[in-house]
Amino acid sequence: MDAQLADTSRSGTGRRLTRPVSVGVVGATGNVGTMMLRVLAERGVPIRELRAFASSRSAGRTVASGSHEAVVEDLATADPTGLDVALFSAGAERAREHAARFVDAGVTVIDNSSAFRMDPGVPLAVPEVNPGALAGSPRLVANPNCSTIQLVVALKPILDAAGLEHLHVTTFQAVSGTGQAAMVELQEQAHGVLESTDVEPEVYPHPIAFNVLPHCDTFDAHGVTGEERKVQRETRRILDLPDLPVGVTCVRVPVFNAHSEAVHLRTSRPLAASEARDLLRAAPGIRVLDDPAADAYPTPLQAAGSDDVWIGRIRADDADPNGLAMFVVADNLRKGAATNAVQVLEALLD
Amino acid sequence: MDAQLADTSRSGTGRRLTRPVSVGVVGATGNVGTMMLRVLAERGVPIRELRAFASSRSAGRTVASGSHEAVVEDLATADPTGLDVALFSAGAERAREHAARFVDAGVTVIDNSSAFRMDPGVPLAVPEVNPGALAGSPRLVANPNCSTIQLVVALKPILDAAGLEHLHVTTFQAVSGTGQAAMVELQEQAHGVLESTDVEPEVYPHPIAFNVLPHCDTFDAHGVTGEERKVQRETRRILDLPDLPVGVTCVRVPVFNAHSEAVHLRTSRPLAASEARDLLRAAPGIRVLDDPAADAYPTPLQAAGSDDVWIGRIRADDADPNGLAMFVVADNLRKGAATNAVQVLEALLD
Repeated sequence: MDAQLADTSRSGTGRRLTRPVSVGVVGATGNVGTMMLRVLAERGVPIRELRAFASSRSAGRTVASGSHEAVVEDLATADPTGLDVALFSAGAERAREHAARFVDAGVTVIDNSSAFRMDPGVPLAVPEVNPGALAGSPRLVANPNCSTIQLVVALKPILDAAGLEHLHVTTFQAVSGTGQAAMVELQEQAHGVLESTDVEPEVYPHPIAFNVLPHCDTFDAHGVTGEERKVQRETRRILDLPDLPVGVTCVRVPVFNAHSEAVHLRTSRPLAASEARDLLRAAPGIRVLDDPAADAYPTPLQAAGSDDVWIGRIRADDADPNGLAMFVVADNLRKGAATNAVQVLEALLD
Repeated sequence: MDAQLADTSRSGTGRRLTRPVSVGVVGATGNVGTMMLRVLAERGVPIRELRAFASSRSAGRTVASGSHEAVVEDLATADPTGLDVALFSAGAERAREHAARFVDAGVTVIDNSSAFRMDPGVPLAVPEVNPGALAGSPRLVANPNCSTIQLVVALKPILDAAGLEHLHVTTFQAVSGTGQAAMVELQEQAHGVLESTDVEPEVYPHPIAFNVLPHCDTFDAHGVTGEERKVQRETRRILDLPDLPVGVTCVRVPVFNAHSEAVHLRTSRPLAASEARDLLRAAPGIRVLDDPAADAYPTPLQAAGSDDVWIGRIRADDADPNGLAMFVVADNLRKGAATNAVQVLEALLD
């Protein structure tokens, strides 16, 4: 697997930039912010100046992207003037509070939160899927939800070849999407179970170690979670299929990193599993691992650390005449967040 | 939760037997066999004589059901004459080899393997769902697959009230379904990850600790697993809906015990989520836990040790006009195997 992963730092779309840029990372000490710093270096984004922002609690710490270091500034009071672009991963509330200020200071903002994703004036972009959304040099771009990104990367080649009529998705979401505290909670709870000592849940309402929770994000009045709505609405928007029937169940699983998705879909025209496999194999940002006879299919342990969307279990779903099923796995901190944001940066500044 | 679980030993259907019976348990030292012995005692099945059978490797060990003890006999050579009923949980191959011999000796056989489940001459029974299958005192009854049992218990009240047109199921399956060695493997691998030592997979082809594997049972030429086919075919058979469109993805998760299922279905007639919730609440063998505002929904840790099928996340699935979604969790060793077999025994011998 190491050899397979060695070349993934340039996977997907995005051209190598030559003009050095001034880059800010907002939420630089979180799971996604840390990964943004790493992916900027991995993809060889030429940095003229690196700046990092976070809450006052983290201000003063030093972070790095490759050989570039930055002392974390307090987001609340920092002046972003002089930056070309800022990658935001500080949550929806902070994005609503500060993104406009950055844009007004002449900074292009790529925001990883849900704040602007359904704003018709803000492009919601996955470069492999809807690069046209980035036309016209937008000053504010929304990065989709992690579960959405890997899903639309997998769906796009199928949609283009055979149309898309119906979609059911069930997710298996890693705790890294919740944050560092959730990763510590999983580790400590697992240790507690193995040592027969109780470790009370704090991040999640129930134990996550050796358990699954059908609960990602908050519930609305209809008993649907925010995560389920995001996957439904963002998928429709990115694929430009506003009426696509999409049913979603989102489940948290005791996996440290990388989300998995069981996808059942119906195409408009017949598409054999073998044809789908060939299409996906040829598509950017996708790695097909689909040889059941050799026990080859994607798992989160395998996809973690990779920038690709891994797809396997591609087969006919005989519940429908044009039914197709597949299993889609990606590193939610990378392609599901940081890598996609950096690809957007590359596309915008190219 | 303890108080809630205290009364589950008589959950579901099945009348308390008064006439003492001679019972044999075949595969008595496995995960399911051990649970069969326990459930027989918990449900107060009056035992005149207890006998236990397993491979020659386990012969000579002593097992117990309540106050009844039995020395394990070698299945290959044992004479079952004198038993009223035998609960088989020794795999399909051994069932094919020995079930007929037991039946010929006058023993009623309830087999937990897949050997006879699709045999039109053998009833496939879940007492809450299709009790009619047990009419006429059949001498051989098949116990359905664990994932199927909890699914059909959840579907039956909905089918009766509003019809059933379409079904998509994604499972989250515990390692106890694979056997004791898999439970040890999960424990040792988890320990290894936490201690940063490698523990090579033996039971599964890939690590299961902090991972998920879209792989339960073996793959067929179409890339579909045996488990996925079982859920599809057995569900159609038990619900007597031979043409029901059923799409299934089965996934192994790092949970010790209790299977979960994300279910998306389409009814023939409109059925509001609130109506479905009321129907399920009134149905035998079901425990509805569905109060998202209070973070109340079923999880495997909660359902493990219970004989009920736990259902929550009951909501409209707006992917379809008559769409409904729910999350269904049950102890796969109990209702998914041993408890259902003992309920069949109770129904047959009543």
